[in-house]
Amino acid sequence: MRGLFGTPLLCTLLLSALAAPLALQAGNSSTSAAKHPPANVILFIGDGMDEHQITLARNYLLGANGTLAMEQLPVRSSAKVQTLREDDPTQYRYVADSANTASTLATGELTSMGRIATSAGDDRDLPTVLEAARQAGLATGLVTSANLTDATPAAFATHTAHRKCQNPGDMHKPINYVPATQQCLADHESQGGKGSIAEQLLASGVDVLLGGGKKEFTRIDSHTPLEKIAASHGYQLLQQREKLLAYHGNEPLLGLFASGHLPVEWIGEGNRRAEPMAFNLLGEPMFPTPFSCQQNPRHRGTPTLEEMTRVALERLADKSTGFFLMVEGASIDKQAHQRNPCGEIGELQAFDRAVAVGQAFASKQTNTLIIVTADHGQAGQIIPLPEYYQSWGGKQYPPGHYAVLETRSGELMGVSYATNAAPQGKSELHTGVNVPVFLQGIGHRQVPALIDQRTINQLMRQHLGLTSGAQ
Amino acid sequence: MRGLFGTPLLCTLLLSALAAPLALQAGNSSTSAAKHPPANVILFIGDGMDEHQITLARNYLLGANGTLAMEQLPVRSSAKVQTLREDDPTQYRYVADSANTASTLATGELTSMGRIATSAGDDRDLPTVLEAARQAGLATGLVTSANLTDATPAAFATHTAHRKCQNPGDMHKPINYVPATQQCLADHESQGGKGSIAEQLLASGVDVLLGGGKKEFTRIDSHTPLEKIAASHGYQLLQQREKLLAYHGNEPLLGLFASGHLPVEWIGEGNRRAEPMAFNLLGEPMFPTPFSCQQNPRHRGTPTLEEMTRVALERLADKSTGFFLMVEGASIDKQAHQRNPCGEIGELQAFDRAVAVGQAFASKQTNTLIIVTADHGQAGQIIPLPEYYQSWGGKQYPPGHYAVLETRSGELMGVSYATNAAPQGKSELHTGVNVPVFLQGIGHRQVPALIDQRTINQLMRQHLGLTSGAQ
Ligand SMILES: [Zn+2]
Ligand SMILES: [Zn+2]
Repeated sequence: MRGLFGTPLLCTLLLSALAAPLALQAGNSSTSAAKHPPANVILFIGDGMDEHQITLARNYLLGANGTLAMEQLPVRSSAKVQTLREDDPTQYRYVADSANTASTLATGELTSMGRIATSAGDDRDLPTVLEAARQAGLATGLVTSANLTDATPAAFATHTAHRKCQNPGDMHKPINYVPATQQCLADHESQGGKGSIAEQLLASGVDVLLGGGKKEFTRIDSHTPLEKIAASHGYQLLQQREKLLAYHGNEPLLGLFASGHLPVEWIGEGNRRAEPMAFNLLGEPMFPTPFSCQQNPRHRGTPTLEEMTRVALERLADKSTGFFLMVEGASIDKQAHQRNPCGEIGELQAFDRAVAVGQAFASKQTNTLIIVTADHGQAGQIIPLPEYYQSWGGKQYPPGHYAVLETRSGELMGVSYATNAAPQGKSELHTGVNVPVFLQGIGHRQVPALIDQRTINQLMRQHLGLTSGAQ
Repeated sequence: MRGLFGTPLLCTLLLSALAAPLALQAGNSSTSAAKHPPANVILFIGDGMDEHQITLARNYLLGANGTLAMEQLPVRSSAKVQTLREDDPTQYRYVADSANTASTLATGELTSMGRIATSAGDDRDLPTVLEAARQAGLATGLVTSANLTDATPAAFATHTAHRKCQNPGDMHKPINYVPATQQCLADHESQGGKGSIAEQLLASGVDVLLGGGKKEFTRIDSHTPLEKIAASHGYQLLQQREKLLAYHGNEPLLGLFASGHLPVEWIGEGNRRAEPMAFNLLGEPMFPTPFSCQQNPRHRGTPTLEEMTRVALERLADKSTGFFLMVEGASIDKQAHQRNPCGEIGELQAFDRAVAVGQAFASKQTNTLIIVTADHGQAGQIIPLPEYYQSWGGKQYPPGHYAVLETRSGELMGVSYATNAAPQGKSELHTGVNVPVFLQGIGHRQVPALIDQRTINQLMRQHLGLTSGAQ
């Protein structure tokens, strides 16, 4: 086995196929440099990144024979996505949102849609793996391409009845479509609550917070400069990519690189998305013409998920305490909601590059558990090309929004979003499919072919030696 | 293991490199009762059974916390589905059919849609794992809930330019939507071909053939009773479930239990399927009412896939030569095409019960490799409930065909089919998603998280010690 690590020329695929059990061995082995290397967990969450969205992106980026970085992790499982009903927590829903699923990944417990690390129906705060790691003296970090106050990062370090409670101004606003038990007011300080997500994040003590959502934090106190607000909680505020990449201090970091969610990396040629079918005067379907993806000029100057992940890993590893880091590729989901296959593919690529940074880190710090997963399914499907519909003649065409992409390898791929008939501006919806789970740094036999999202929380706690939580 | 890593050639062919020595290990293992137990392969193909269709069926059958038999296999991978273009076999399509994918599983080579174990563009016959097993003296079997002449079973034991060439009467019929290179005439005996799929199956020497499609075989010779046609090729013909269950001879078996595909096990209450959205006079969407699934009375008297699998395993194991058996759950796909979630769920349950029979067999004959996979994706998606669309108000509703199922555990689940706007009677279409792969009887380290369908062929050949094929 030692020979394997000593042979850099072995193909990376073979290495990664064997890395998992060897990583565990390395943790206990005398060949390893430190006797008790710190245990690290990196949880990568591709929001909405089910197997269909992965296939779609892989086909576009790498063709029919490609393999993404995340797909080179040695162990695969699949996780059930479970959602309780707020109105009757003994019953399940079969489609989730990012709030309840991130809450389960964070806490190991099931809850209802919209909730941030609180329990369905009775609104108890549920302790998270990040909080347990911090209490045990480990370093912690949250990295996202969305608002830092968005559901996924929020669920690891804050507790609210609803994901909409992002800044103090939200706390008195009623939310129309949400039951009384999930209104924000209950979390307001005046009601004995912990306040908005932004306030709770600032008080969280998380060592590295990198993402978007500056406007949520400025609303904490519009009379005080954001630097001062951050500093009053011990955070160094970073607002530019250059500052982030040049930072080598050791203060807690609050990186806010956009007013809201970070701009996405890719857009469609001519800003095209999937489109509803058009019809000629005879009522015959007119299929959309193919297009390719291109860089989004608005992304320029924004740190990539890869860059933020690299900085976070450096800062957290510096402490030599072991750490918990969550990295979210948030806009895979957001772009699928908007029927934007190029946005989705570019964000999945950005996420996959961040995973590769994690893999490179784990090749040096072998007591690192990497888990790559999604929170829930999304609407995108690869469906046949126009030529196929036309070969059947007549009124056969996709009923939703449809795009024909010309992939990098010059082939055509049909992509459909068809969960909501509402026009552009409204949103496609999540789906209820299982989500993939890729793992590295864990023994093979510990992970059955089918798990649920609570199990992911348990695996992380076990790797970090945290005995609290759902065990 | 050192020997494995010491061979640099292995990096180019990761899978065969990893699988071959471990397959040998299994063959030589001293833990097994017999010194040289015969090697067996059971390949279960759930037609159209991607992860979304599995989740949908599991939710209905077992609720949010269930696990199917196939999901209890110890190893999971995921297979890319690759399809060449007939008009340019250097290019790929991103949506497949059962013919080209079953051909890849059977032969280890890629081909174009519609083809049955022949090559894209130049129509060469591609040798199959079943043929290699038979030539090596192993027993062989094909079990399906479709016509035995349907694409999936056909691809393991016959060779035609197109799946439509099922009986002699098909061989002169032009197929409209198919290029000249894939017309059936080229396979006609008059052109030096091997004839229709039914004729080739009868001449195949496969030991056990169980399924539907009697009418395809009767068309071989309408003047001769089917028993005689079967007998002239050495087959005992069985046409009734009782005869099948009572059979204990050792002749080659041809079981034909329906004129066409076998009747499916389940239908919707009141024969309901997914339905297009209805609208009231104000143009507002009227969401469909929930329904449950029930037994299909037309299935009575038909052998289940479980029963056929049990008989096939008994007959093949009796020979003590080792065997290759393919079992297809064909109508998961066919019912999804028809927007029939209950049909789909009932067939997936039937398929899963057949897998459980295979698992029970492998617990006794431990040198059995079980692979459970699908050929390609299907249209079904779990989407939100009407209450969710209604909470957003206005014109928000699913654009395709929609059903609300009341599951066994009394919860509601929304199911959508939305790849084709054509009305009932026309067909939903396949999707291009990766398909799941569940394995048992193979070392954990042999199968990376992402493979393709050619790899499945290689794993089977290696387990059976068949050196021919794509290596
Ligand atoms: Zn979303
Ligand atoms: Zn089909």
